[in-house]
Amino acid sequence: MTSPGAASPVAFQGEPGAYSQMAIFELLGDRTPTLACRTFRETFEAVRSGAAGRALVPIENSTAGSINDTYDLLHSHDLTIVGETYLRVVHCLLALKDVDPASLRVVTSHPQALAQCEEFLSRLPAEKRAVYDTAGSAKALAESGREDEGAVASALAASIYGLAILRQGIESDRANTTRFILVAREPVESASPAKTSISFQLPHRPGALHDALLPFARRGVNLTKLESRPWPGRPFEYVFYIDLEGAAADLSLREAIEELARSVQSLRVLGSYRAASPAGSRRGG
Amino acid sequence: MTSPGAASPVAFQGEPGAYSQMAIFELLGDRTPTLACRTFRETFEAVRSGAAGRALVPIENSTAGSINDTYDLLHSHDLTIVGETYLRVVHCLLALKDVDPASLRVVTSHPQALAQCEEFLSRLPAEKRAVYDTAGSAKALAESGREDEGAVASALAASIYGLAILRQGIESDRANTTRFILVAREPVESASPAKTSISFQLPHRPGALHDALLPFARRGVNLTKLESRPWPGRPFEYVFYIDLEGAAADLSLREAIEELARSVQSLRVLGSYRAASPAGSRRGG
Repeated sequence: MTSPGAASPVAFQGEPGAYSQMAIFELLGDRTPTLACRTFRETFEAVRSGAAGRALVPIENSTAGSINDTYDLLHSHDLTIVGETYLRVVHCLLALKDVDPASLRVVTSHPQALAQCEEFLSRLPAEKRAVYDTAGSAKALAESGREDEGAVASALAASIYGLAILRQGIESDRANTTRFILVAREPVESASPAKTSISFQLPHRPGALHDALLPFARRGVNLTKLESRPWPGRPFEYVFYIDLEGAAADLSLREAIEELARSVQSLRVLGSYRAASPAGSRRGG
Repeated sequence: MTSPGAASPVAFQGEPGAYSQMAIFELLGDRTPTLACRTFRETFEAVRSGAAGRALVPIENSTAGSINDTYDLLHSHDLTIVGETYLRVVHCLLALKDVDPASLRVVTSHPQALAQCEEFLSRLPAEKRAVYDTAGSAKALAESGREDEGAVASALAASIYGLAILRQGIESDRANTTRFILVAREPVESASPAKTSISFQLPHRPGALHDALLPFARRGVNLTKLESRPWPGRPFEYVFYIDLEGAAADLSLREAIEELARSVQSLRVLGSYRAASPAGSRRGG
């Protein structure tokens, strides 16, 4: 199956070698053209403007939780979710040459990556220095020519910037996994097993959320994730985002969504797409 | 009513003059002894060890949403919620002397405060520089003696560090409000109107969350907030946190919680406490 926009690049946030770019190659194949963007917002704007056909952005990490920026961009941009993938985040300690990690004077990376590798890094004498992003730390190291510095980034970053991998898998949590979503301007026909994401706003009254979930519970539709974010301009009221097993075109899911739509203040189907599994990454597209 | 630990200091995160310290003074009175801590974790540890009687920590902002660190600390520490308060976050532009804001060369603050004041700050020629926290930027400015620099922080920070307030209320969102919770080792008897916070973990099956909310919906108990966070060590499974109107000792709420406890894998009552209102701050304790 060729996806709409398959010829256009897929936007991601970060420098080349970012985990998001790795996830694009895992989901869509190694030769997928990609477009590096500075911020999450720029990836959404690239799709909206047509500079990119699709964007792959992280939405949830197994330890850090939901990525709020992505939920808020789904709310503010009229894009649709056309796919998802899970990536095991394997952090590597990189350097210019294959030296003893104990000889490094400084190790740089994104603060979250440094935190995820703290157990390993705390055994090194090196000073930990926070920078803008993981792949950016690898790029800066390659450009600096400093043999006594290291960077924590992906194996892909090592290969792009010609760095040596001193250690692979230095993250403390060996199940550290990020879920990414693929967004586009137009929906795709979802393959099986499907997942559907919707968002809605609720009135303030007892049982409102319970009642909102009833159409799904009654039909045995499984809810795999619920997230709430501030409703812009309505302090301490919320926009809810739920992920459901099945396609929006399936009879039971379609009926449940129609039933919910009658009782909430607004409802949006964010997309139906092929469900991936956190256990192992798979190729598709 | 004197609260347990009323003589001990109340811990907060940040330098003196932090918004958290302002919120303590609003909730408990201006002469409440306080203890400045470097991190949220240290505020919880201070209460656990007895160095502080209570800690006041932010749990939710009206635009940025939930503060994940606080939810995760509630999970990992056996403390109880004994109060809440809302603070309108009014950012001020501070300097050593009462100069024209346009004459400032640099303005420093926490990145989130800089972002919340971007509309105002973008009209100034000053370079924006991110630092560790808001009150810390005021403290550093006072120590530096630099008359051509500014800091974005609270009016309390201005008074503590002897700085001039060049502009007050420079935040773009004039409803910008943060909800704080007060935690202690032992529960208090909650005053009316009460709010109760609980947490629980759910099995993976269709309708599980709907069924978990049923005991409350059936009894007309209002749910004011639902949050989910990663279940540590169980990737893509969740710990749910809900806030309910009423006290856990009230008949209907007690029955509902007991009913829920029979169907979930674990349930914890995080505390019952006097509910505050986002509309206006109130004094209490």
